[in-house]
Amino acid sequence: MSVYLHDIPLSQAQSRLRQALQDADLWRVLGTEDILLDENALGRITAEPIWAEISSPHYHASAMDGFAVRAVATSGAMPSAPVALYIGPEAQYVDTGDPLPEWANAVIPIENVESLDENDQITKDIRKPRSIRIRAAVAPWSHVRPLGEDIVATQLVLPAGHSLRPADLGAIAASGHQTIKVARKPKVAILPTGTELVPIGSKLKSGDILEYNSLVMAAQVKAMGGEPTRYPITKDDFNLICERVREAAQTHDLVLLNAGSSAGAEDFSSRVVEKLGTLLVHGVAVRPGHPVILGTVDRGPKTDTVHRPSSVVPIIGVPGYPVSAALTVDIFAEPVLAKWLGRRPLELPTETATLTRKLVSPAGDDDYVRVAVGKVGGKLLAAPLSRGAGVITSLVQADGLALLPSGVQGMDAGEQVKVHLYRSRAEIDRTIFCIGSHDLTLDLMAQFLAEHERRLASANVGSQGGLVALRRGEAHLAGSHLLNPETGEYNISYIRQYMPNIPVKVVALVGRDQGLMVRKGNPKGIKALGDLTKPEVQFVNRQRGAGTRVLLDYHLNLMGMSPDSILGYTQEEYTHLGVASAVASGRADCGLGIAAAAQALKLDFVPLFQERYDLVIPKEHAESDLLAPLFELLADSGFQDSVSKLPGYDILVMGKIILED
Amino acid sequence: MSVYLHDIPLSQAQSRLRQALQDADLWRVLGTEDILLDENALGRITAEPIWAEISSPHYHASAMDGFAVRAVATSGAMPSAPVALYIGPEAQYVDTGDPLPEWANAVIPIENVESLDENDQITKDIRKPRSIRIRAAVAPWSHVRPLGEDIVATQLVLPAGHSLRPADLGAIAASGHQTIKVARKPKVAILPTGTELVPIGSKLKSGDILEYNSLVMAAQVKAMGGEPTRYPITKDDFNLICERVREAAQTHDLVLLNAGSSAGAEDFSSRVVEKLGTLLVHGVAVRPGHPVILGTVDRGPKTDTVHRPSSVVPIIGVPGYPVSAALTVDIFAEPVLAKWLGRRPLELPTETATLTRKLVSPAGDDDYVRVAVGKVGGKLLAAPLSRGAGVITSLVQADGLALLPSGVQGMDAGEQVKVHLYRSRAEIDRTIFCIGSHDLTLDLMAQFLAEHERRLASANVGSQGGLVALRRGEAHLAGSHLLNPETGEYNISYIRQYMPNIPVKVVALVGRDQGLMVRKGNPKGIKALGDLTKPEVQFVNRQRGAGTRVLLDYHLNLMGMSPDSILGYTQEEYTHLGVASAVASGRADCGLGIAAAAQALKLDFVPLFQERYDLVIPKEHAESDLLAPLFELLADSGFQDSVSKLPGYDILVMGKIILED
Repeated sequence: MSVYLHDIPLSQAQSRLRQALQDADLWRVLGTEDILLDENALGRITAEPIWAEISSPHYHASAMDGFAVRAVATSGAMPSAPVALYIGPEAQYVDTGDPLPEWANAVIPIENVESLDENDQITKDIRKPRSIRIRAAVAPWSHVRPLGEDIVATQLVLPAGHSLRPADLGAIAASGHQTIKVARKPKVAILPTGTELVPIGSKLKSGDILEYNSLVMAAQVKAMGGEPTRYPITKDDFNLICERVREAAQTHDLVLLNAGSSAGAEDFSSRVVEKLGTLLVHGVAVRPGHPVILGTVDRGPKTDTVHRPSSVVPIIGVPGYPVSAALTVDIFAEPVLAKWLGRRPLELPTETATLTRKLVSPAGDDDYVRVAVGKVGGKLLAAPLSRGAGVITSLVQADGLALLPSGVQGMDAGEQVKVHLYRSRAEIDRTIFCIGSHDLTLDLMAQFLAEHERRLASANVGSQGGLVALRRGEAHLAGSHLLNPETGEYNISYIRQYMPNIPVKVVALVGRDQGLMVRKGNPKGIKALGDLTKPEVQFVNRQRGAGTRVLLDYHLNLMGMSPDSILGYTQEEYTHLGVASAVASGRADCGLGIAAAAQALKLDFVPLFQERYDLVIPKEHAESDLLAPLFELLADSGFQDSVSKLPGYDILVMGKIILED
Repeated sequence: MSVYLHDIPLSQAQSRLRQALQDADLWRVLGTEDILLDENALGRITAEPIWAEISSPHYHASAMDGFAVRAVATSGAMPSAPVALYIGPEAQYVDTGDPLPEWANAVIPIENVESLDENDQITKDIRKPRSIRIRAAVAPWSHVRPLGEDIVATQLVLPAGHSLRPADLGAIAASGHQTIKVARKPKVAILPTGTELVPIGSKLKSGDILEYNSLVMAAQVKAMGGEPTRYPITKDDFNLICERVREAAQTHDLVLLNAGSSAGAEDFSSRVVEKLGTLLVHGVAVRPGHPVILGTVDRGPKTDTVHRPSSVVPIIGVPGYPVSAALTVDIFAEPVLAKWLGRRPLELPTETATLTRKLVSPAGDDDYVRVAVGKVGGKLLAAPLSRGAGVITSLVQADGLALLPSGVQGMDAGEQVKVHLYRSRAEIDRTIFCIGSHDLTLDLMAQFLAEHERRLASANVGSQGGLVALRRGEAHLAGSHLLNPETGEYNISYIRQYMPNIPVKVVALVGRDQGLMVRKGNPKGIKALGDLTKPEVQFVNRQRGAGTRVLLDYHLNLMGMSPDSILGYTQEEYTHLGVASAVASGRADCGLGIAAAAQALKLDFVPLFQERYDLVIPKEHAESDLLAPLFELLADSGFQDSVSKLPGYDILVMGKIILED
């Protein structure tokens, strides 16, 4: 069946593209332009070495405000034996930057000079005494900036391929240039295709997909130094797409043809490339990204004034999923733009980190995994985020990309993995890693902590999962609301069970209502736990280990209800909002969760219980500078106000110390 | 005498400015604006948290091309026991991204489906068989992207104060926004003042100073996220400057008043600030930078439509020397712009490095020293560059800034120093540190190496200095042309003397002419070494340890001439071009050096000797990957051509191995 793609290894795909560009004389700087030396030159890439036209200073300049003298005339001057110099033939006032008179070869700073005109205040008009007195000799060329001190005409100021920074512009100006030859910005056409796509801001109906890949790709191209053109959405029509690619190829250096590159029914991209030029690659063994297409298309007649060296234009068929799209541009387009601009490809700083959970990876693929990175107890950790290629927020939250190279079938928790960092080490060093149960106040906390030089990264693995992560030293703190069914007490017995021998501090964050979320108007009339066993009621549950799940099981047990009697008991969601959205979408009729989540998705809420949500913090971290702002936050009235405005939240307990070992 | 500035500590100066801004209600985000969500939003700073308006996906979407089914209808399907499903009530074709029919809760990927219509090729029109056959059951929600998988309405997408990256723009669009509220760009007026200043590109006469500080500062402001306005040069006229500051203050958030801030005759800045508002600070104990002025001026009548919270405008009197100016903007303006934009101040990555030479520093000052940074034999080294505040190229060449904090009076060679890095570790790791004698071919080599993923950083300390640096493990290679007066051999005896027990590889780089550089037309008729003793001839020498100096001394000795008989023998320059420029400027009549340097400054050249210039490379580095491209370069015809075009150079010996231990 031809629906399968023929994936080739990443390195092979990259070298095929490179070879095709070399053959077309496109593996080089595309073109140059002379631009004015102003602040808009920032970030442009020098197209040739810059040699100094003039020297700087271009004369012997005084380095101080003072008097130009002949050094030899000062010899012998001492505190006890001052030397007098007459203004005119022997000394001349100079400001900083003034040229030395021909006869002078040194400057005496003004603060080392006394006026001989005894009644004059030297400060009144220091420049016009009749003579001066000095009490120390000066060496030749002291306090002088000799010609060429900074730049000597003909010297290399900057090499070609250099990205211009502010000081570079100054040095170029100082060396006598008014314009600079820089690499022309490569023009990149971005063509979103897909009948299901609608523009940003559209009113959505089921099946509509917001087209924002072209936005992300345009911003990527811009950040890489290219000049993007976003085309309007083209529907899935072979001839229309051909027409638009042909049009784009006439006036651009690279065409990014988005979506339609999977093996599905709407796969026109490879056929378009075959029709208009040469298909080089269809399918690359890289995750995310698989259905990448690489090729060249014929340029056709010239319709702009830009010089282009070749009659073909490279085209990249970019997969439709947003994460795949962004990574495809990084992996395939970036090195091409770098070559065209004459700069080095961008490179992210790389660190080695400890993987927090097992990863499975197809052995043949180069697998890029988005990870959160944090430093806990001196150890750099990489926590894998969602691997769905459709989850753009995983790119937003990612602190880096872990690479599982082809040949590696997977990695175990605890193994060392290479991570390309999106953030600086300083940012990572001030990141508080929070794991465990999800609560809406954590979003607010993240926002407030950002104002206090801390970044909160949180991963939702349920209350028990959080305690286990703390035991393994994989987080700074965990949110937990685990009820002990025997004592009615929260968290403490679980802490002792899951993390024995680790001294902790437990602080209450909030009291909150738990109850049943139901659709607006409660169409199935669900009022109590007992209603969950009705045959027409579809329930949605939280995952095992979640505090809310423990709470449910506790009450089911109290009431003698069997989980088997509840339709959907085994259907699990990982967050309160996940449960709410399952109810909102009709996938379930109700689920247990918090009031805020119900309100967020415009659901009705049937309150059943109040519970306490605590922060569990190993003592070692509780006493660290890193976490200090978090404790301040618990007493911050602005934060308390914001939390108390969330429905179903009670801040009476906030900051109360529940346990301190 | 009031000409002395009253320097206050840096931290105190910063906190005075901050306090004044707080008092004026200016220590906060200045203002916000709603901008369209397009690629120009890149790098803008979010002014408020971004919460999701909609969920993404906003319906249950198929994650594959395939058939939507009810999971329960597939149960029991096995390779040996296929299950048939009728198209319509039991299975419906969906493309990736399509909504699931109401009744479906899973998708079977197309590659796991067989058509029951035996004679049909499933590939012909897979979407329209009458029924399908499957040989494996699917779990509920497999191959489905449930509503909210990426984003759940109401969740925090991005916090305030976040600098927007490409993927962020996608996530904002996906969460239902068409515009974003970002911090308004602070408007910064840049006013260059000084009668001696002339615009970039002017024909220069003695005493003219090219005004490029405003260019560097504008580029800095732009890079920091502000909007710079460069004013034309204002001459040193108190009233004119006042008028222009007043005008700038009406329409800007910050005024940078450049130059005129030294204690000299042209010091108007502090008086201007005093007249128009409040002088907060005059002089800060920071090097370079000392004569910094901080204050506020009254805004005056409003002449633009921008909302500004205060009736005063901060003003920074920026010192005139280019390095001081750039660092003043980094130290004082950057944190203010960061606050106004709501982002964190920029921070450079910091590393600890070993200082290669002693540094003296006033104990009371925060002293920022530009350093070259390289990794030699696993050790990170910081080599101090020129400390002249007028040497803008020292900022261009700097790999980082070493901070000698106030309280530290200096540091010895070998001490550990904190360095704020301008370059990434990857860049530093591919830097070849070359030290020793200067030769023009090193500039060409730097340019060629840049094309081969290497950066050449060279420091000129003379041939002997280079060998000493190699012994101390402070460079990868040294350029050397040390003649042994007894054997007529180059370098080897010196290598054995200065770096005993270090195995080396010595490779010839070039043969070159040494001779006397004289002014055009040779006005003093200098033809041979003997002419140097004429009383009207002023000589300029190279520093002790330089190969050219050794050569001179050798020949003086052969001819029985005494150094004392040469006027200017003790006047030392550190490079060939330094000597050439001393001759060109008239500071000396002649000096010994190479032909290329004479030609560069349009001097005549009297050839006297030919000599060999070698590269001395410790074996440990000669065999490293880092230096491999350097050896390739010596055989590269493009490089050889470029070198042979330099006057007085001979490439016959290039690449010849002189010694290999």
